[in-house]
Amino acid sequence: MRTIDWDPQTPVVRIIDQRNLPTEKTILELSSMEEVASAIRDMAVRGAPAIGVAAAYGLALTAIQSNADSVKGLWRELETAAGVLRASRPTASNLNWALDRLLRIALSSLEESAAEIRDRLIEEAQQIADEDVETNKRIGENGAGLIREGDTVIHYCNTGALASVDYGTALGVIRTAHTQGKHVHVLVGETRPRLQGARLTAWELDQYGIPYEIITDNSIGHLLKTGTVAAAFVGADCVAANGDIANKIGTYMLALAAYDNSIPLYCVVPTSTVDLNMASGDQIPIEERDPTEVLDLQRGGKPIAPPESRARNPAFDITPHHLISAFVTETGIIRPPFPAALRRAVEEAQNA
Amino acid sequence: MRTIDWDPQTPVVRIIDQRNLPTEKTILELSSMEEVASAIRDMAVRGAPAIGVAAAYGLALTAIQSNADSVKGLWRELETAAGVLRASRPTASNLNWALDRLLRIALSSLEESAAEIRDRLIEEAQQIADEDVETNKRIGENGAGLIREGDTVIHYCNTGALASVDYGTALGVIRTAHTQGKHVHVLVGETRPRLQGARLTAWELDQYGIPYEIITDNSIGHLLKTGTVAAAFVGADCVAANGDIANKIGTYMLALAAYDNSIPLYCVVPTSTVDLNMASGDQIPIEERDPTEVLDLQRGGKPIAPPESRARNPAFDITPHHLISAFVTETGIIRPPFPAALRRAVEEAQNA
Repeated sequence: MRTIDWDPQTPVVRIIDQRNLPTEKTILELSSMEEVASAIRDMAVRGAPAIGVAAAYGLALTAIQSNADSVKGLWRELETAAGVLRASRPTASNLNWALDRLLRIALSSLEESAAEIRDRLIEEAQQIADEDVETNKRIGENGAGLIREGDTVIHYCNTGALASVDYGTALGVIRTAHTQGKHVHVLVGETRPRLQGARLTAWELDQYGIPYEIITDNSIGHLLKTGTVAAAFVGADCVAANGDIANKIGTYMLALAAYDNSIPLYCVVPTSTVDLNMASGDQIPIEERDPTEVLDLQRGGKPIAPPESRARNPAFDITPHHLISAFVTETGIIRPPFPAALRRAVEEAQNA
Repeated sequence: MRTIDWDPQTPVVRIIDQRNLPTEKTILELSSMEEVASAIRDMAVRGAPAIGVAAAYGLALTAIQSNADSVKGLWRELETAAGVLRASRPTASNLNWALDRLLRIALSSLEESAAEIRDRLIEEAQQIADEDVETNKRIGENGAGLIREGDTVIHYCNTGALASVDYGTALGVIRTAHTQGKHVHVLVGETRPRLQGARLTAWELDQYGIPYEIITDNSIGHLLKTGTVAAAFVGADCVAANGDIANKIGTYMLALAAYDNSIPLYCVVPTSTVDLNMASGDQIPIEERDPTEVLDLQRGGKPIAPPESRARNPAFDITPHHLISAFVTETGIIRPPFPAALRRAVEEAQNA
């Protein structure tokens, strides 16, 4: 099954609830835009490409369930819904990218009937989902050459099939190298506080038969310095025009450690994650999440701190572009200087 | 109560079992060298100064319980016991330092009776424990000037009263600044995998009435880059002659992030942690611990990874000296270049 699926009968968006993995694989059925926004906010669905697709389906649900008696009324509802969906994860640029695609379709169809607009939005959401799988496979092929036979690589957070509709970005590169017959060993950063590495990436690697070891995030520096790590692979939630990236909290420290040890760091993203409106990382908003995620490590488990403790929980950080060796996208590998090359890649993908 | 206490009646070494904090405060009674070594190995007692004192008492127990019918026989038993104790945490230099002090006493008393040697070893162990508290108070006074009114500082792992006999090293500096009336706010790195920050440092700060927030280790870079952090304070398990340090896994990444943001990193240690026999960090052995510590996050809690997962668990890393702004010791503040100044400090402390 795809991480996100659309059932046109009911209609509902079906997602794998990522909060319960690896212990349980449960499927959530989301039947309204509000349920989709909640699922994104609560990280039942997560990963930049995945939440882009989920948001697109969420907006399609708004169109389907609209009672607006005019096209103008429908447009206003869509704009409001898009605002709710955008706010569900403020750092993720794929959310904006997917919603903007649907809104552009709606805007160009204002002369049509509400029914026609609704059909076009559903079609566009499904198109985004289908493209995602194809894009990721191309990314995997473009990046697999960066991994040599016998390499040990570091992977951070989860960028696999779960983080997209299928196949994944950074993990997709590793998966492609494995499929090509290369023996790859993965050091999986556990990724506190939500443990996407230990819970989700490890679960995926088990399924692909790729050997791995889980490591604490704070041990990455030591392992880069003393081990035989060939490269580090990460995704991104937003890539600015200058190549700065926002990615899961901890990526910046990983990047510093890779740089200090002359080990390449590859950022693997679809061009839909590049937001040319963000001049640099300084402009990307960083989501701060509920401190409970830090303190209640296993959602109802034994407390890890004294009862009255407070916590900070920034969900992302900014890695400056000079720490990134290259981007891997569906258009190819992008090496520094990044600004012109990123712009070209985005344009090339748009015209494809 | 002191973290480690000696009861001459039984005799036993009493320690606070740090594995159960903050949920429960239980006291362990260790009645043999083997029990002391196990308590160190299992981290019931931890922290460089604390395990030095515990090991000294452990060796005293060997002397007390010896059945050797000659001084030479006793000496052989002491040497064997010291080997077991040294191996219990291979990275910690205070362990070697304390054991060497006792062995020197024994060696210089070989002309005496076994009973006399035993008494001198007990006395020396108690002397080490008493000195530790005084040393830490001097360290706190020497370092408190590095904290200004209103500062937010980062503290990593636990270096407080629990990590020593009393008062602490890096946390002792923060505690002294607080006692001087300065308003200090502490960002407490949780310190995976054993969560010494979230469990132990937070528990201590609660008792001292010092405000704090717990942070994931991987968020330190972001908070140093975007926040208003004035300085970072860490301890060390071993300081090499050139100023490289071995400290809790993650310190190296913290140091890289502090350096990248021009925020001072202070390493706070008694001179007993400086091992002039280690030319540089390359020579310090890094303990790798049981991977279960990473995977079974709360000792019997919900699994954080698929059932068959493997893990790596290096317990320390090396921070190169150029990332350290200064050392704070009982002899004063030591700024670069470190080699001659560290040697002078060790000699000064030995002659004090």
